[in-house]
Amino acid sequence: MAGRIDAKLAELGITLPTPMAPIANYVPFVASEGLVVVSGQLPAVDGKVSLLGKLGGAISIEDGYAGARQSFINVLVHLKSACGGDLDRVRQVIRLGGFIACTPEFTQHAAVMNGASDLAVAVFGDLGRHARSTIGVPSLPTDAAVEVEGMFRIA
Amino acid sequence: MAGRIDAKLAELGITLPTPMAPIANYVPFVASEGLVVVSGQLPAVDGKVSLLGKLGGAISIEDGYAGARQSFINVLVHLKSACGGDLDRVRQVIRLGGFIACTPEFTQHAAVMNGASDLAVAVFGDLGRHARSTIGVPSLPTDAAVEVEGMFRIA
Amino acid sequence: MAGRIDAKLAELGITLPTPMAPIANYVPFVASEGLVVVSGQLPAVDGKVSLLGKLGGAISIEDGYAGARQSFINVLVHLKSACGGDLDRVRQVIRLGGFIACTPEFTQHAAVMNGASDLAVAVFGDLGRHARSTIGVPSLPTDAAVEVEGMFRIA
Repeated sequence: MAGRIDAKLAELGITLPTPMAPIANYVPFVASEGLVVVSGQLPAVDGKVSLLGKLGGAISIEDGYAGARQSFINVLVHLKSACGGDLDRVRQVIRLGGFIACTPEFTQHAAVMNGASDLAVAVFGDLGRHARSTIGVPSLPTDAAVEVEGMFRIA
Repeated sequence: MAGRIDAKLAELGITLPTPMAPIANYVPFVASEGLVVVSGQLPAVDGKVSLLGKLGGAISIEDGYAGARQSFINVLVHLKSACGGDLDRVRQVIRLGGFIACTPEFTQHAAVMNGASDLAVAVFGDLGRHARSTIGVPSLPTDAAVEVEGMFRIA
Repeated sequence: MAGRIDAKLAELGITLPTPMAPIANYVPFVASEGLVVVSGQLPAVDGKVSLLGKLGGAISIEDGYAGARQSFINVLVHLKSACGGDLDRVRQVIRLGGFIACTPEFTQHAAVMNGASDLAVAVFGDLGRHARSTIGVPSLPTDAAVEVEGMFRIA
């Protein structure tokens, strides 16, 4: 039987995809005494990064927002694994880190990262209200436009 | 009655300002089992970011130092909320993250971030000695010159 | 008598160097209730940063990989201090953060950061499999090419 959070994801029309394998020698998440850290996730769809380039360049705020949302969906995939498949075990989204590949002139990082934050709150409600740091970066692995990492408390 | 840390802040001539509202869909801090994570804070005064631009550009090391100090004051505001108003509950400043908007040629990130670190030690004494990572970034939300995030243990 | 991890380091031909003093007002690690956070470490050898410049510029992937490895060796130095000298107390490498100084066109951050990740797994085995976030940055303190930070669980 699907849990409360699974039902919410279905309501939002979100199917959690097959996780993209880490592109190097690390694991997608570590759980340690109820603290879960999820590795930085890219806006990958079907194992392929779907948003390449930079904000303030060819990529619009809207596309960046969608990329941050997709990155957070990939965070959710691994968080679900950390929960043994049961996302109802999530007690708190503690922190999201957002990395926005952009030009030095770009200033709307927050509007992009909202794609991740809005989804966190839509999925988890009050438990999804998180601390957040968002910064610009000159480039990301594989030329991805956005990367999102997360820290969570689970039961 | 003011606590020990409140007295130290008064001695340093620091009045904690009204917190700046998050500029997006997240919260300024999360407390989870004694661990407090404070969202990245900008050098805002009265809700307005007071230091715009880049180190290695128009902004001097001294101004950057003052900006990091102001960012940490804003971290303190939210940490105080996390403590229910009683900063004496802080057991340890675990980690500060410093993000310095700068040119590719800039090398004095540490001197800028000291504005935050020096104040942490001035306020909390030995409990204020923290781990730290400081990095350059091409740009920050709202064109801020500095951003500081924090992780704390509270009683 | 040397511990299991000390023996593994010897087998890998690694002698942990004298730690480089923090270049500013902070400490190299904080331990709090079994959680250890190690400050961002540079590829320093004998207290001198050995790899300056940028990936995508004058520095090759191979040199960047070696720099990330050296940075993680410096993380190990402080982790060992946090363990009171006994690295066998390490229960989990929770997270490594990798900061790669690079040009906006650079895309192979993961290959560079593998220098740290590969060593973590070589030293700690399954306990060394970690979550990871790797990002590009325009510049790092002292013009270092790489910076690595770590979070660990110790007994």
